[in-house]
Amino acid sequence: MIAPGRLAELFTPRSVALIGATDRSMWSRYTHQNLRAFSPEVPVYCVHPRHDVVHGDPVHRSLEAIGAPVDLAYVMVPTTEVVPVLAQAADAGVRNVVVLTAGFGEAGPEGRALEERAVALANERGMILLGPNGNGFINAADQVAPYGLPITPPLHAGPLGIVLQSGGLASVVLHMATSRNIGISRLVATGNEAMVTATDVLAYLVADERTRAVAAFLESIRDPDRFREIATAAVDAGKALVVLKVGRSAAGQQAALAHTGAIVGDDAVVRAALRQLGVVQVDSLEDLLVTSGLLAHHPQRLGRRLAAVTASGGACDIIADRATDEGIVLPEFPEATAAGLAEVLPAFSNPRNPLDVTGYVVVDSTISHRALEVVVDGAPGTYDTIVYQATVPQNPPPDPALVLNRYRAVRATVDRSPVPVLVQSASSSDISPYARSVLDEVGLYVLNGIEHGMTAIGRAVDWHERRAKPRPRSPSPPAGEGWGGGERPRSEAELRTVLQAAGVPVTPSRLATTAEEAVVAATALGLPAALKVASPDIAHKTEAGGVALDLRRPEEVAEAFAAIAASVARAAPAARVDGVLVSPMRTGGVELLVSVRRDPAWGPVLAVGLGGVWVEVLEDAALRLLPVAVEDVEEALGELRGAALLRGARGRAPVSVRRVAEVAVAIAAVAEGLGDALDTLEINPLWAAGERVEVLDALIVWRKEE
Amino acid sequence: MIAPGRLAELFTPRSVALIGATDRSMWSRYTHQNLRAFSPEVPVYCVHPRHDVVHGDPVHRSLEAIGAPVDLAYVMVPTTEVVPVLAQAADAGVRNVVVLTAGFGEAGPEGRALEERAVALANERGMILLGPNGNGFINAADQVAPYGLPITPPLHAGPLGIVLQSGGLASVVLHMATSRNIGISRLVATGNEAMVTATDVLAYLVADERTRAVAAFLESIRDPDRFREIATAAVDAGKALVVLKVGRSAAGQQAALAHTGAIVGDDAVVRAALRQLGVVQVDSLEDLLVTSGLLAHHPQRLGRRLAAVTASGGACDIIADRATDEGIVLPEFPEATAAGLAEVLPAFSNPRNPLDVTGYVVVDSTISHRALEVVVDGAPGTYDTIVYQATVPQNPPPDPALVLNRYRAVRATVDRSPVPVLVQSASSSDISPYARSVLDEVGLYVLNGIEHGMTAIGRAVDWHERRAKPRPRSPSPPAGEGWGGGERPRSEAELRTVLQAAGVPVTPSRLATTAEEAVVAATALGLPAALKVASPDIAHKTEAGGVALDLRRPEEVAEAFAAIAASVARAAPAARVDGVLVSPMRTGGVELLVSVRRDPAWGPVLAVGLGGVWVEVLEDAALRLLPVAVEDVEEALGELRGAALLRGARGRAPVSVRRVAEVAVAIAAVAEGLGDALDTLEINPLWAAGERVEVLDALIVWRKEE
Repeated sequence: MIAPGRLAELFTPRSVALIGATDRSMWSRYTHQNLRAFSPEVPVYCVHPRHDVVHGDPVHRSLEAIGAPVDLAYVMVPTTEVVPVLAQAADAGVRNVVVLTAGFGEAGPEGRALEERAVALANERGMILLGPNGNGFINAADQVAPYGLPITPPLHAGPLGIVLQSGGLASVVLHMATSRNIGISRLVATGNEAMVTATDVLAYLVADERTRAVAAFLESIRDPDRFREIATAAVDAGKALVVLKVGRSAAGQQAALAHTGAIVGDDAVVRAALRQLGVVQVDSLEDLLVTSGLLAHHPQRLGRRLAAVTASGGACDIIADRATDEGIVLPEFPEATAAGLAEVLPAFSNPRNPLDVTGYVVVDSTISHRALEVVVDGAPGTYDTIVYQATVPQNPPPDPALVLNRYRAVRATVDRSPVPVLVQSASSSDISPYARSVLDEVGLYVLNGIEHGMTAIGRAVDWHERRAKPRPRSPSPPAGEGWGGGERPRSEAELRTVLQAAGVPVTPSRLATTAEEAVVAATALGLPAALKVASPDIAHKTEAGGVALDLRRPEEVAEAFAAIAASVARAAPAARVDGVLVSPMRTGGVELLVSVRRDPAWGPVLAVGLGGVWVEVLEDAALRLLPVAVEDVEEALGELRGAALLRGARGRAPVSVRRVAEVAVAIAAVAEGLGDALDTLEINPLWAAGERVEVLDALIVWRKEE
Repeated sequence: MIAPGRLAELFTPRSVALIGATDRSMWSRYTHQNLRAFSPEVPVYCVHPRHDVVHGDPVHRSLEAIGAPVDLAYVMVPTTEVVPVLAQAADAGVRNVVVLTAGFGEAGPEGRALEERAVALANERGMILLGPNGNGFINAADQVAPYGLPITPPLHAGPLGIVLQSGGLASVVLHMATSRNIGISRLVATGNEAMVTATDVLAYLVADERTRAVAAFLESIRDPDRFREIATAAVDAGKALVVLKVGRSAAGQQAALAHTGAIVGDDAVVRAALRQLGVVQVDSLEDLLVTSGLLAHHPQRLGRRLAAVTASGGACDIIADRATDEGIVLPEFPEATAAGLAEVLPAFSNPRNPLDVTGYVVVDSTISHRALEVVVDGAPGTYDTIVYQATVPQNPPPDPALVLNRYRAVRATVDRSPVPVLVQSASSSDISPYARSVLDEVGLYVLNGIEHGMTAIGRAVDWHERRAKPRPRSPSPPAGEGWGGGERPRSEAELRTVLQAAGVPVTPSRLATTAEEAVVAATALGLPAALKVASPDIAHKTEAGGVALDLRRPEEVAEAFAAIAASVARAAPAARVDGVLVSPMRTGGVELLVSVRRDPAWGPVLAVGLGGVWVEVLEDAALRLLPVAVEDVEEALGELRGAALLRGARGRAPVSVRRVAEVAVAIAAVAEGLGDALDTLEINPLWAAGERVEVLDALIVWRKEE
């Protein structure tokens, strides 16, 4: 773990040595060129043992030969020379190193050993190392860019920090940011992350005062515990973390156990974890940039009620559709606003939200802005965010002052608006240099494109809402820690005892070993009854013919007992069978699944879902990292596609979501109390009807290695 | 309906008169400028009764005063003057008119009347009229653009035809196409569609030999029957229609009846219809252009097995994720290919598909192309489409010949490849003028951006697959046309008779009017039994307490009869009650819903889905326009989210999807036979277990107005 303060030193070098500089290497050329172009005041020393002049500069034979302090060593020597060079750098008092050279951990065991030696040496000598196998970084805020790929000027400084676990995409992302007029604070490609990890850089960016939001391209989150801390710090600081997490398709590799395998796949856990931690997730590079760009450039809170001013009915159609997708509402304009718009707009227009000022804008270019003025006057109360679609000309018109004055007027309206006004371009094409100059001059940020823009607004609204919610109180520590003798419950009967002891309501049941006992038990507990084989060796009781439901008369109970005994003997002849559990039948409610499974990276994860087809066919489950509070679980239940069933769809009585959540929290506490050896605790079904909630079936699996 | 040949005349004017030309109008200026810039050889006559010089040209007082034939009149006069101008145009022998002027049908009843007069006059005088309230068109193939908004040259001619029902978006779409290097054949904004409709233009573009694919931005499809014909013609011609249909959020406005209301919402029908007709649907302007651009520029068939060559691991991650989303597979490279790649690439690389040639491409810019060569040699057999990610420099390098030669070599490899090679840019930023010049010079098309590019590939593969499928034979004409006496079945009992007569299997049932009759019937039909109130006035029997299921003993049947009678009397005291229908209980199978509902635009629509929560909570239904063949319905059933249940999920026996489809087709035939007065015929549930399929409940609703 590298502290933010230490990284600040790495990222703001006052002098740089290019070690292994040579005219033949494009990396060397680009890095030299980037440093010279953006930070002419930062001394750059080319170091090479055999050249005299490189990139037109005199060459130093070694680091010591420079004779001046070196803040950053940018290392491009062959793989095998990297460790010796690091030693020389340490001798010369260098504290910060970028290693561009590849052939380390990514290349196999030999490279991995070399990488470990490099890290050991750096640690020993108090150096930090970015890379290897990375292109370096771009500090746009301070305009210094020891970065091995070409950068087309200008290097637009601004509020967005970017970190990428892919060096190859760094230039793509930089280019996409520039062409969307997004200002960058720092852009860091972490390469092999031998020392400095993406998590370190995230922590740095969250702490960095020049950064107001962070975009991250992540292949893996190596230190989930620290990531949790950083994400929480980002939420506290009001800086959105926007993440494009790749590797979705690798999900679901884990062998599935019980039904939970399909639910708690790796990627599903990561997605749930990120959401729970207040991280904004996106699914494309475009959304990564447009969404983080919005959150960086518009830190004010955006509300869910939107007004839009556009110059095309088609744009209005798209905005309306996409708003619905994002859960954004487009309220009707207040009467006074509609009346005001009717005055500004031509007679054939229709002053509705979203507003099309019509093609008449070609005749009178002021109507767009005047319409915006009227709409701004109508806020707040009705809408709390305004989108203003504007097309800045690509090329300077005959009279550039006209354009500049128009956008100055827009800026003035934006400034006096009681609610945020987001300027948006209808096209997602690049912002031209001329358009950029106009926007920079007047200080406006333009959201790029309708669809990606609406996605950005949706995500931003969501982020602000989640951030404003009171955080659920932490639950009390697990009640049952230790379980008396420390014995692990293994059978369902033992598990029922443990759950009951922890206050989890469990359907009454009795173990019967004969048909007669079953009839007695069923009659005592109340008909109709459910019978279920009790065996530590049979996980899938239904498939083994070990379950009989809805037995209404004593004879049916006796017959079912015999049938179960016969089926199980056939299906699982080697299984130990303790008998048959007899319970009263629960009907008329909803069956849920509640499980806790240990994810290898994120620890215990709670899954809640509706039982049966919902989980098995639709994989409709909501996940939460533990610990959870009751409010968390209520929210999770609300996210289910089948949530309407809990609210009483199809003529049923609604289920108390609060009560289900309380029971799920109690189950989660039991799971946490069972310690690290627990693999899965699964309640399926958890039956709920109104305020009544009961565990009907429970399964426990311990980790194999223990 | 305007025939394609007639539109060809409109779209290739050899002379244009700008009627109402004036320096004060930007529309006039832009149109004049566009005509002068792109078609200097086409005479342009400015017509205005009072000006002498407009746009630097001498002005004609009237159309007659021109003294030369005029192919196209481009009308910009005030709204009230349009009809007189049209009369003058007709007198002058003009056959083609664009009306830019607004204030017609879109502005209210007065405007609508004016619009009707204009159309009547045009029809009478043999003229066709594009607009009003439209910006005209761009014929890039012939480089003539009577179009009222600015066009930045060059006007890149190519294989994509574009039609838009939004004039305001036309320039946005043009700009987005240009910046993605997509070549345009024609771009037409249809305005109010007083005469020339988007459907007319679609028919024209499908027939146009310069157009290889069509992109359409549609707000509504006004003539579904003709649209069906055109879509079919497009599939036959091998030209993809790519549609962005807006107005999704307006769906579900229709009052819902029974359960079908939630399913056969307008927009759901349009989406199903488009899919059934082989139309490619997209959800953003970006996808509209990138997908149609691919299909226009790469008409060869694309297969589902993809190999990718990139210069970044991050791009590979995204491609892998997006490929999974699109159902595209990334097969492992054959051994020989992997070995060949190992020779070309640096030692630390990993020759897997998708391939990252590594950042070493900075050192040796040839490795990317050499890797492509090896991958091309490995096809076909393993993969049938190759993506080659390439970044053409934005600006000319010191030695432009190097770049040109590199892309010439790529082009040669593309040409010799046995499978299509798609060149793709990692960034979705604009293609720079220099990059465009290189691509034009060597004749390569670049797919814009990874994510939108993968969407395009997914849609294109899908389109080619659907196109290659044998079309299902048309079903035989509905068997039961006329129903004997022409009496409309109104009660469930009558409906059961009609269904049975048409060969639809219906669960046996008997009507009982006393508890004793119910017991007799239940015993005769076989216990357990189901009881259901029979009443023409009760549509929701369960809600009225009119249903009892799983009655195993005679006493239970008698009790249930009494309970139903009591409940119904309480819930619906005014309802006419014929008695109670007694049926044997069907369990252990799957319950489906099959319904036919008349959509106001598209006619009868078949919906198939799983019953219960699947339809009511998840709205999981697949729709098909009638007529359908059995294969259509099999495909529709396969699209359901719950399709796994039909295949035997959760330990059940699989259902014969073929048999279900046959029954659904028979039900559809009954519905068609019932004629236009039918609103809804709904079978819910249709019970299926293995080869057994039976109607358990049926509901019919006739249209109100008849």
